[in-house]
Parts: sequence; C-alpha cells; structure tokens
Amino acid sequence: MSRTAKQNQKKIRYAVVGLGHIAQVAVLPAFAHAENSELAALVSDNPEKLEKLGRRYKVKARFSYDQFEECLKSGVVDAVYIALPNHLHREYTERAARAGVHVLCEKPLAVTEDDCLAMIRTCEENGVKLMVAYRLHFEEANLKAIDLVHGGRLGDPRLFDSVFTMQVKEGDIRLNPRELGGGPLYDIGVYCINAVRNLFGAEPMEVVAFSANNGERRFQQCEEMTAAILRFPGRERLASFTCSFNGTDVGTYRVVGTRGELVMDPAYEYAEELTQRVTIDGRTRERTFPKRDQFAAELISFSECILTGAAPEPSGWEGLADVRVIRALYRSVETGQLVTLPPFSKEDWPSLAQEIRRPPVSKPVLVNTEAPSE
Amino acid sequence: MSRTAKQNQKKIRYAVVGLGHIAQVAVLPAFAHAENSELAALVSDNPEKLEKLGRRYKVKARFSYDQFEECLKSGVVDAVYIALPNHLHREYTERAARAGVHVLCEKPLAVTEDDCLAMIRTCEENGVKLMVAYRLHFEEANLKAIDLVHGGRLGDPRLFDSVFTMQVKEGDIRLNPRELGGGPLYDIGVYCINAVRNLFGAEPMEVVAFSANNGERRFQQCEEMTAAILRFPGRERLASFTCSFNGTDVGTYRVVGTRGELVMDPAYEYAEELTQRVTIDGRTRERTFPKRDQFAAELISFSECILTGAAPEPSGWEGLADVRVIRALYRSVETGQLVTLPPFSKEDWPSLAQEIRRPPVSKPVLVNTEAPSE
Repeated sequence: MSRTAKQNQKKIRYAVVGLGHIAQVAVLPAFAHAENSELAALVSDNPEKLEKLGRRYKVKARFSYDQFEECLKSGVVDAVYIALPNHLHREYTERAARAGVHVLCEKPLAVTEDDCLAMIRTCEENGVKLMVAYRLHFEEANLKAIDLVHGGRLGDPRLFDSVFTMQVKEGDIRLNPRELGGGPLYDIGVYCINAVRNLFGAEPMEVVAFSANNGERRFQQCEEMTAAILRFPGRERLASFTCSFNGTDVGTYRVVGTRGELVMDPAYEYAEELTQRVTIDGRTRERTFPKRDQFAAELISFSECILTGAAPEPSGWEGLADVRVIRALYRSVETGQLVTLPPFSKEDWPSLAQEIRRPPVSKPVLVNTEAPSE
Repeated sequence: MSRTAKQNQKKIRYAVVGLGHIAQVAVLPAFAHAENSELAALVSDNPEKLEKLGRRYKVKARFSYDQFEECLKSGVVDAVYIALPNHLHREYTERAARAGVHVLCEKPLAVTEDDCLAMIRTCEENGVKLMVAYRLHFEEANLKAIDLVHGGRLGDPRLFDSVFTMQVKEGDIRLNPRELGGGPLYDIGVYCINAVRNLFGAEPMEVVAFSANNGERRFQQCEEMTAAILRFPGRERLASFTCSFNGTDVGTYRVVGTRGELVMDPAYEYAEELTQRVTIDGRTRERTFPKRDQFAAELISFSECILTGAAPEPSGWEGLADVRVIRALYRSVETGQLVTLPPFSKEDWPSLAQEIRRPPVSKPVLVNTEAPSE
C-alpha cells in the first residue's frame, strides 16, 4: 500500500502534552506538513495556552494535566507527543501506554536507565509503540553524514569532536537540577552522543568527563558545562564533546578519518540550514542543506509505524543508549574516574532510507512561553 | 639602539644540531631572513647531510655528534638550535650551557619535568639564555587571537576545543616510545596545550585523558591518539583536544565565549596560510594571514635577547608548563583517574609586541631525510 493510499485511509490522532517553547515553535505547526497525522488534543495546565493555541490550530479537545486520563480515554487520540520536562517523561509515557495510546517522546527519553527500561517495558506490555523524538534521524544532511562515514569515504573514521553551546537564561527549565533531567548533558549533550553513536555505528565502552561552573546564580542547580571523552570498542575510536549553557550559539561536529574529514556546522539545528564540508585526500566539497520541517518528519514516520505495524527507529532502546552514556558521564564527573559501561548493542542505525523532506515552518507567535536564550 | 644598528654591530652565530626534516625544511633556510643571526656550524652524524647542506648554505664548520664539544669550543658559535629527538634535548642543552653557548631548543623542551628544570637551572647557572622554539609566539594570527580573547571580545572565554591530526608513517622518530618523547602528545598535543594556556592566560589545575590504539605495527611503541580535557582555575574554564598520528591533516582550534566564538583553521601550520574566523553577537568576520617564515622570527627574537640581555619569551618555564601537562595527561591515561597538577604560574604571556614578519621560505631539496607523512 502506498503512503498516499494509507493517508486516505486513516490519520493518527495526537495529543500534544506540554505546550512549552518546543511544542509551540515546532511540534504544533508540524502537523500542517504531516499528512498522516492530525493534531487532535492539547494538554496543558495553562488555560491561556489551551484557549489561544486551541483556537489557532482548531483543536477542541483541551485538557489540564489533571485531566490526562480523561484525554487518553476520550477516544479522540491514538498517540501522544510528550513535550514535558524530562523528569515527567516516564510517568506520562507509562500512563499513555496503559491506556493503549502510542507514545512519541521528546529526547532525552528519561532521566535514568531504569526510567527508560520501565517505559520500554510498559509500552511493550501494552502493545503500544514508543519512539524517541530524534528529529535528525530523518534529516538529509545528518543521514548523508552517517552514510558517508559508514561507507568508508573518510577511510577508517578514527575520532569525533563536537561543541554544542547556547546561552540559557535564568528561570528556564533546562536549568533544573540534574535529578530532574536538567543541565546541558541531558538537553544538548544528548545530540553529540547520539551523533557519534550513529556515525561510528557503535556503543561507547568507557567514558570520562569534567563539569564546570562559573558560579552564576542560574547555575545553582545544574552545571554550566561538561566536557566528555568516549572510547569506542574494536579499533578503539575516540569521541570528545563539550556542551554548555553559557556559550554563544555553536553546534558543530567533525569526524576525522584516516584519509578524510567531515565537518557539520551547524550540525544540530532545526531552525537553520545545515552545512556539510567534506575533505577527502585534500579536496574539499561543501554543501548546504535547506531548512526543513524536522518535526513533521518525526510525526510522519511514527504515524506510519503505527499504521503499518513497523518498528519505530529511533526506538526506546535508542533513547536508553544515550541516557546510559549521560549517566555514566555524570558518574565520572562525581568520582573523577573513568567509568566503564556495561555491554550494550543495537543494530538498527538510521539510514538514508528514512529521510523525509517537508518544507520548514514559520515561527508562530508564542503564547505564555519564552525561548531559552535572550 | 635600533634593530638595524644592532645588526650592523653583531650577528649571533648558530650551530644547528640535528639535520632532520624540520632542520632542513625550516631552520636552515630561515637564516636567510634572520638579519641578526648567522648559520655558522652544522652538527650531524650523517656525512652526506654535512657535506651537501654545508655546501648549500656555505657552512664550513661541520661536526659529528662525537665532536659536539669541539663545536661548542670552536669559537665559531654563540648559540645552538637543537633540532634533535626529544630525549636528547636535555643532554645537548646542558652541554651547550656548560660551554657558555646559548640554547634555542625545539619543543617539547624535554621529556620530563625534571629534565626541563635541570635544563633551566644549568642555563641559569652558566649565564646562557634558553628559549623554546614555539614559532607561533611570533606569528600574527596567533598573537591576534590571544589579544582578542584577552581583550574580552568574545565575552568571557569559557571553553577551548582543538583537533590536531596527521598521518605519521612507520619508521618516523615521532613514533618513538613515550620514554623517549615519542607519541602525538609530545609532538603535536603540545601545540594545543600551548595554545589554550596562552589564550586563557592560565595554567590547568586538573586533567583527564584517554589514549587509543588501533593496533597497527607503527603504533607498537606509542599510542595512535590521545583525547584530553583540562580544567582551568578561577571561573572554571574547560579545554579539550584530540591529537592523532593516524588522521588526515587537521589542525584547528576554537574558543567559545559568552558572546562570541573564535575559530583558527588551520591554526598550527608553518607551511600554509592561517585563517581566523571570529563571530561576535552573530556577525562573522574571516581573515587569512599570509604564510610567513616563523622560524626566522624565532631566530631574530632569540638573537635579539642575546644581544640586548632581554629575557626570552617563550622561556624554559614556558616549555616546562607544557611538559608538565603532557606528563599529567599520561598519568591520567595510565590510572584512569583525573590528575591534579601542582600550582604553577607564570605571567609573561605572548603579546602582539613580539610579532615578527618575514617572507616564507621555499621548500628545499631534502638530503637523506623524509617528511613524517606520505
């Protein structure tokens, strides 16, 4: 059955749970480009958000968090898009799963490995699908980078290096304590970890990290920045990255191979073009990929999995794979020692086959929310 | 007294000790641009090098290593440029110092902190000057970068990140065992360490590192690559870098500040233009600095110190400052733990005042030596 035939048949109806910045600028507008997905309900404790966004997107089913069960049992939603603070991912995922509602959850999947495992298990037991919202798994530039590295174009890829920094202003939820999934590793370090795992097609076996804090009030509950090194098995590749909530906007990575280099700069953006510079045997080629609606791609892919019974990629295991690295890095920060990770493997790396292209969205007027930076 | 007046007065006469690749492609040709310096003697155990290079540069005083004392006491040299393997730096420096001959020594200054301290002490006791051949301390792009960061143009500089990789072929002296100063940290990691110490104007207090090895025969005696993180005191800056002998040619660093970013790419070259990209408050400016004779600059500066009695910058202490970080990084590699460095401070950071511009040299025909890469 073609995608067109399927979309004529049925659209997956979503409740978007949590109406903060990312929901407003990216998730809600994405439904316009996701032909197999429908925005069916909104969940928030802020009446103004429910009212204004409900009217803007013509969504009549509106619920407070207290009414989440009601939402799940309303019969108007097949799936939820969880855009809540990290420490609430587990609870809302499990509640949706128990009500037979599929879950597309923002990254990081959860705060701890136990949380991730519980979410994966509960979704399995209740026969619902779980996907983690790694938007770059559907993005052309990123998939081409993975394809190029896996294909040996750089020779043997030996090392990965990334810097991901932004300014996060006081009061932003990203500055939550680490126990609630706050801090730069959970919010942006997860992109670096996800990138290198997929580029190397492997799981790190040992990690070390340093966190730092300049003592500003906004960094009272989580660190300002963390730098990390990951060692990968087999031919011993190394990856290092630094992520910070107190740097100008930078988001870039490079892979250095025995005969070539790949630079993505910017690498992790959804609101800008992505640029890829590849140098092989001394010859450089640069290519810019247009800004696209990466969130519509997630919705389309997840809805298709629900409609066809296919397994989502990125799966819950992909979410767990990053969270266990984050937690190991924090253990290294606390102990001042290298941390050895238990064996873990998964084989379903993203490939060009999962690329989905949709036009970019325009930035909507925000309702009762702010961008993380000034 | 003007520089011209001084140069009319006297030239410092050098013996170049060790006639390997760097001596042949960079040091020997540099005398043509160093108006206060004269190539007066050659020291090598290879008769063909002595003969051919002696003829090419019209140097009659030629010595084997066994005749090094003879060279020092010949009365034809005021200074030596030591371009020997790292583990020989100490011995040849001390012998020169005891003969009253000044020493310009390639970096790293030596293999251990004890070696460095002994060299500094012996030069002091014998009233001779000691400089470490950090060629970028006289280079415009690098000095402008330091000036820009120290001047607060990026806001508060928070993190440094660098990648320095090259392919080193089997048999090259860079692949010596670590005890002899082989391996990527001594040879190229030293540039990253030197860069960040000068950019931050501070000494690291804690370090961690991972080394890796893909098992190739050329990496039997030293590691293939090392990734490191350095923590700096005060407002807790972080620096990370990766250096490798098994990557395509990459040599770049970035400094991320609270409101701007500086990228140098290439950052460490002497045989290419250097490019500086500065982004402040979202506006990017790129500038390319012409290839120059960075080795002539070293000679001119050191000779001027000898002629005027000024203290060399970079001093022996600057050399020690990097070697102690390299050694701490290897301790971390061995123990799998963070290593705390003892307090250390020096105040003489390089400044724009020490910039010296001379035209680049052409690559000479090599005699019985090879480039480290294919």
